[in-house]
Amino acid sequence: MMHLAAFMFTPGSHSAGWRHPEAVPECDMDFRQYAHIAQVAESGKLDAVFFQDTVAVNGSASLDGAGPYRPRQGRTAYLEPTTLLSALAIVTQRIGLIATATTTYNEPYNLARRFASIDHISNGRAGWNLVTSQIEDEAGNFGADHHMAHAERYERAEEFFDVMAALWDSFGDGALIRDKDSGIYVDTAKVHLQNHRGKHFAVRGPLNIARCPQGRPIVTQAGSSGPGMELAARTADLVFTAQSDLGEAQAFYADLKARAAKHGRNPDHVKIMPGLMTIIGATEEEAQARYRELQGLLADENSMRLLARLCGDLDIFAYPPDAPLPPLPLSNAAQARQRHLVEKAKRENLSIIQVARYLATSLGHHLLVGTPATIADTMEQWVKAGACDGFTLLSPYYPAPLERFVAQVVPELQRRGLFRTEYAGTTLRDHLGLPVPPNRYEM
Amino acid sequence: MMHLAAFMFTPGSHSAGWRHPEAVPECDMDFRQYAHIAQVAESGKLDAVFFQDTVAVNGSASLDGAGPYRPRQGRTAYLEPTTLLSALAIVTQRIGLIATATTTYNEPYNLARRFASIDHISNGRAGWNLVTSQIEDEAGNFGADHHMAHAERYERAEEFFDVMAALWDSFGDGALIRDKDSGIYVDTAKVHLQNHRGKHFAVRGPLNIARCPQGRPIVTQAGSSGPGMELAARTADLVFTAQSDLGEAQAFYADLKARAAKHGRNPDHVKIMPGLMTIIGATEEEAQARYRELQGLLADENSMRLLARLCGDLDIFAYPPDAPLPPLPLSNAAQARQRHLVEKAKRENLSIIQVARYLATSLGHHLLVGTPATIADTMEQWVKAGACDGFTLLSPYYPAPLERFVAQVVPELQRRGLFRTEYAGTTLRDHLGLPVPPNRYEM
Ligand SMILES: Cc1cc2nc3c(=O)[nH]c(=O)nc-3n(C[C@H](O)[C@H](O)[C@H](O)COP(=O)(O)O)c2cc1C
Ligand SMILES: Cc1cc2nc3c(=O)[nH]c(=O)nc-3n(C[C@H](O)[C@H](O)[C@H](O)COP(=O)(O)O)c2cc1C
Repeated sequence: MMHLAAFMFTPGSHSAGWRHPEAVPECDMDFRQYAHIAQVAESGKLDAVFFQDTVAVNGSASLDGAGPYRPRQGRTAYLEPTTLLSALAIVTQRIGLIATATTTYNEPYNLARRFASIDHISNGRAGWNLVTSQIEDEAGNFGADHHMAHAERYERAEEFFDVMAALWDSFGDGALIRDKDSGIYVDTAKVHLQNHRGKHFAVRGPLNIARCPQGRPIVTQAGSSGPGMELAARTADLVFTAQSDLGEAQAFYADLKARAAKHGRNPDHVKIMPGLMTIIGATEEEAQARYRELQGLLADENSMRLLARLCGDLDIFAYPPDAPLPPLPLSNAAQARQRHLVEKAKRENLSIIQVARYLATSLGHHLLVGTPATIADTMEQWVKAGACDGFTLLSPYYPAPLERFVAQVVPELQRRGLFRTEYAGTTLRDHLGLPVPPNRYEM
Repeated sequence: MMHLAAFMFTPGSHSAGWRHPEAVPECDMDFRQYAHIAQVAESGKLDAVFFQDTVAVNGSASLDGAGPYRPRQGRTAYLEPTTLLSALAIVTQRIGLIATATTTYNEPYNLARRFASIDHISNGRAGWNLVTSQIEDEAGNFGADHHMAHAERYERAEEFFDVMAALWDSFGDGALIRDKDSGIYVDTAKVHLQNHRGKHFAVRGPLNIARCPQGRPIVTQAGSSGPGMELAARTADLVFTAQSDLGEAQAFYADLKARAAKHGRNPDHVKIMPGLMTIIGATEEEAQARYRELQGLLADENSMRLLARLCGDLDIFAYPPDAPLPPLPLSNAAQARQRHLVEKAKRENLSIIQVARYLATSLGHHLLVGTPATIADTMEQWVKAGACDGFTLLSPYYPAPLERFVAQVVPELQRRGLFRTEYAGTTLRDHLGLPVPPNRYEM
């Protein structure tokens, strides 16, 4: 059985997908559209919807004061994911609800409360995608010119997770006794101070919220550099990664599961779900025609700007677009993503503009163009070959491609016995087959 | 016409109200109860529900490491208000949704996004209650032993508001053109960098969310010291304050409206809504019996602990409970609240234990015990005498007292033509009679 999440990146993960006649780009600011998309995903029995997030408008830093201001076309404005999740909890019943939040520009006490609150409001369907931030534009909104260094961000993230996890154990189950006769509200033996004092945080606790229905929300991790994999191996329930080559994906999968075991964890309790964009047609020709139609909407100038953001200090515009991708200086933003591109370019002999278009098509994630059957073939192959536990589904735009996936690919997977036909449980933990962690203070 | 908001302080604003046989103290962690309460308030055509907030469990600091840990009885654990508001937006249609968030332990970019997102999800019903924090237990959750000093907190709050307000103007109306033909998503002339560089914050902007349905969310202010009143006069749409004496309330009202005028604002655009707890009976005797029943549930020990928290460094337990309230050293937490108590004690000749019980009954807010008619009399008198523009209604527990207010006092106010019988508009701004502010970058 595989796991499936719908990646939410409005108005679409294909940088020109929003221009498609079917596309509803207004979904980025319209709650009813988000509700519709989540309900479509739920009707397909998907494990979760999974919201990307950035605490800046892409491209704002490079143009600081140098107007005219040119935000990246497409993804610019959208609803804030934690407030969005709790609203979606009301218009859905079963599907998991995962939002991204960065450890670099948040405080653990505040974030622990919000995700716990969403877990209560959704009756156990919340997930936190822990990221350490990617685009450096964010720094400018929090008093800095650049992110703190990659290594320090991960050091902070490790401690941030530990504080969050401890705060989520503040209250034992049944701590709130609310006994009217005695006048005793709380069983104080079941309320736990954390008294955390670390390098990045000092947090006394307790968190002012009862323990979550899931024990604690699901934690997802989306960094794939060395430190990113270590953090995931130690802490993550679910890993989102960019993998487009079967062999590389198998190596990543084996590596991460082995690291999890070294941390004393059951490797089955870390689900690895690489990104996957599908372009579906009733026939191969129809699928290819759909793909060509989408590619016809791309503007090379925009695609090059996307690539430029991953090149660190190197000025990619100084190279001819048809030249091979030059070696890239190590980025302070997303190192694994950068490595993934470089390796793909080498493997497939791609020129600069081809890499840029690939990035603009699927954010650098695996792309499958085909019929429901051929798409299901590859998905089946990847899962059976130990390359992943499922997929995070990118939509080039909303909502039609996701509707098509749910109507055509999901039944195909179900027929093959590869995907659930009904939710077995009620929580996201249930869907993922993960146990409720014990409270550390009550073991 | 007066304005009414329902103050949300689960499991009740009376510190032993939750012990009442009618009380449902489980409301503190149960979304369905919050939904019910908000729907009751909406059925009474109230302007808003108004959520208190604290980023700590009360009393955690004083017992740090000195176990056994004793949280304040009653209010201990509850849903986080911003995630709660967006969920409530889905189960209500018209009522305003206000949540408290402190400027002392948040970042303006993150908070601006969340309130803007709630404003979009609710179609223009969001409000932010700006506080600078009260109980010092909070400091321990954010790396400090104490709050920064009162004056510095307000300095930070002034700048915090300015940054939020500027961020909310990041996008002009119609900036998101999403033109499929040209491929232009954003009218970049309508997207505004802030480039704020102040003493407490450096924030480039723009905020990654479209301008709010209300232009910007309503801003409420709840501090009543000198700096608190100045901040309110300059920035607030609505002011929450503790006033239990008509003369004092009139003076506060006149003072604040004059300060608003000095800031070049229309004084009508600052609504002053002091707290009010009502205990309602069909007859005076029934109301008094209800009051006595509630008071019989109080434990003096708990009440004294509430008072102790407002005494700064003075050890109130060292004094005999029947002694008059001694002079209190100026608190770093809530100065206006402290002054309000001292003045009330002097005016009414209250002993220490009497002050403590008063605080435990209504959090120090105005208390009216009577029939719907006598309660409406006083409310009418206060509004007509220029003491306030309406009231923030405290419930000793939930949900029965609010249900009773809506069923019995609201119709009485409506009969007198003092309160709306139907919502005239759809946004919180509409309910309060406040104009949509122009975008500062587009005037
Ligand atoms: C598939 C994927 C999705 C990501 N999504 C986000 C995101 O939504 N927001 C964000 O700030 N960073 C995101 N990141 C960035 C990483 O989580 C991480 O913070 C950053 O890439 C640096 O880590 P790395 O060098 O380990 O990849 C994502 C990375 C990957 C690989
Ligand atoms: C009626 C009222 C309600 C308040 N509600 C809160 C609250 O929910 N959370 C909080 O941290 N502070 C709250 N405060 C505290 C103030 O907003 C302010 O941050 C603090 O009291 C110091 O300001 P002051 O000395 O001007 O009163 C409240 C104060 C008053 C008077």
